[in-house]
Amino acid sequence: MKKVHNFNAGPCVLPSPAIAAGIDSLKDFRGSGMSVVEISHRSKDWEAVMNETETLWRELLDIPGNYKVLFLAGGASLQFLMVPFNLLEKKAAYLETGIWAKKAFKEAQILGGDKAVKVASSADRNYTYVPKGYTIPADADYFHITTNNTIYGTEIHTDLNSPVPLVADMSSDVMSRPVDVTKYGLIYGGAQKNVGTAGVAFIIVREDILGKVTRPFPTILDYRTHIQNGSMFNTPPVFPILIMNETLKWVKAQGGVPGVYKKNVEKAAALYNEIDRNPLFTGTAEKADRSLMNICFVMNKGYESKEEAFLNYAKECGMVGIKGHRSVGGFRASVYNACPKESVEALVQCMQEFEKNNK
Amino acid sequence: MKKVHNFNAGPCVLPSPAIAAGIDSLKDFRGSGMSVVEISHRSKDWEAVMNETETLWRELLDIPGNYKVLFLAGGASLQFLMVPFNLLEKKAAYLETGIWAKKAFKEAQILGGDKAVKVASSADRNYTYVPKGYTIPADADYFHITTNNTIYGTEIHTDLNSPVPLVADMSSDVMSRPVDVTKYGLIYGGAQKNVGTAGVAFIIVREDILGKVTRPFPTILDYRTHIQNGSMFNTPPVFPILIMNETLKWVKAQGGVPGVYKKNVEKAAALYNEIDRNPLFTGTAEKADRSLMNICFVMNKGYESKEEAFLNYAKECGMVGIKGHRSVGGFRASVYNACPKESVEALVQCMQEFEKNNK
Repeated sequence: MKKVHNFNAGPCVLPSPAIAAGIDSLKDFRGSGMSVVEISHRSKDWEAVMNETETLWRELLDIPGNYKVLFLAGGASLQFLMVPFNLLEKKAAYLETGIWAKKAFKEAQILGGDKAVKVASSADRNYTYVPKGYTIPADADYFHITTNNTIYGTEIHTDLNSPVPLVADMSSDVMSRPVDVTKYGLIYGGAQKNVGTAGVAFIIVREDILGKVTRPFPTILDYRTHIQNGSMFNTPPVFPILIMNETLKWVKAQGGVPGVYKKNVEKAAALYNEIDRNPLFTGTAEKADRSLMNICFVMNKGYESKEEAFLNYAKECGMVGIKGHRSVGGFRASVYNACPKESVEALVQCMQEFEKNNK
Repeated sequence: MKKVHNFNAGPCVLPSPAIAAGIDSLKDFRGSGMSVVEISHRSKDWEAVMNETETLWRELLDIPGNYKVLFLAGGASLQFLMVPFNLLEKKAAYLETGIWAKKAFKEAQILGGDKAVKVASSADRNYTYVPKGYTIPADADYFHITTNNTIYGTEIHTDLNSPVPLVADMSSDVMSRPVDVTKYGLIYGGAQKNVGTAGVAFIIVREDILGKVTRPFPTILDYRTHIQNGSMFNTPPVFPILIMNETLKWVKAQGGVPGVYKKNVEKAAALYNEIDRNPLFTGTAEKADRSLMNICFVMNKGYESKEEAFLNYAKECGMVGIKGHRSVGGFRASVYNACPKESVEALVQCMQEFEKNNK
């Protein structure tokens, strides 16, 4: 098998034991004589997987009992509308820190019109920072943030204090750093970065914030439907949930969230240090808001013409997925939990070699 | 590996070459050095899978160019509301042939209230038949049917003539028998019976029926969003789509839909013949409406007390998933495309042995 260093922004590199367990389950699920994709989702063995997965979430993030944990088909994009359907009655407040935050806001507007308000935005400087010093409206039903902005490489590093239920899209940084779940009303995200493969979303919701909207809305968009049915109102996305289960087991084996966080800090520091040291490159995000997950950089002034050459050289060195998103340009190295330190070291070496050959 | 005969109602037995291909792709996707769950969904190799999958659908069902083919996260339950969101303006007509049809109707009611009308129902006899002789309202935006009723074992065997766009949930019989797609406005379903694993739905829609509703509705629920983005508005459920792709290749290798249909007719005939011959058992669905996919039967009069004994005996013989749904009772053998003839023969033999020992 070709050796690559996978910096894809998501779907992305996953823990190899999780993939191996997925393969074993496809061959014969827990001695059933059937593949995991052939078993009934109402079987005891499958229910055990659902329960285990919930328990792992609760253990790893220290989720209190008054929060429910759901696993639903689809990704964050479906949650962009489920959040306002479930919570928006009189006012919804949004922080705009990137394209995904903007998309979430748009769905609140489609449902609620002027009831959806934008509290602050960093669009003025292409989302290279996280707005600060804004006031969260105390009469809002909730305040929505995107904790990590995959495209721009910015991250909200602390759990905000909010006078209203804080709703966070944590698609690209959940399980990568410690969070105090009790500071949030609802946390959601797609699995395909730190907690598995595409096709399933996680939702952690404090139950008392639900059931307050007065309009009727579709059954399957109601979180209470899924709470009542243990995330099995309809057939769950079996294989993505299995991979989530195995990915969480791997996180646990790494020393849980503190364990992966320590490695994430080291990996990000190694790469940011090289970006700051190497005269050919420069970071795009404000230093205080730099993401631990998505590290964005461009060619420094005077070296702009070398962009294509570096991309080609990096490719030769086995780097995959480091081309930046078109709205930022340059490069992006996504260094999620499962990205090994060796890949970061290889990228740093590649940048140093390129410097030597191009200065 | 334990030898079982898998009669699960869905998720269910899948073609072994499709599972084997899934395993290969998890190990190393098309020589990329990465697992299929680790690649970018924007990569050329993945786009090739999306295109191949669409082409297979078009070939196998002879889908004309004015129909679009979509693969969206989730299952049929999400389509229950996407259909009225996209199509319901003044009136939606529904045929109630079972619990799933009823659930689809409920979502139209939640959105449209009295605009959703039930044209006919077979609830009076526990959905053991398909209503006939009703009139489809000519002023409806669409007429919704469920072609196969998994729980009750009934099926609509012909493509109906409808004066308004015919919308069909074909979750449990798509690709099992020939259909004339041009008779339908929209066909949808979850993949987890005849076309793959849970987590993805297929939608085949005649494009001109879209864009006629005047109210705004969420972006991700709009079929046009997904048409414009080739089913990649957001990250698609990669692995379920891959399994769908491989399952369709298998259907093609069986001689396409005519090939699997021939086998399905033979399998169903073998089982229904035994049910009709064996004095211990009796079928629950009206003969004219018997499903080729889900074969429901109960203990015959006088033998009711033997139900548990037969279930145990069948289990001893390696039968999995033949307990009937609680709303029908008795037994249900789901004999989807990938269910081998040998499994049906084994079940028939099991019924005959049970007869010998219990008459």
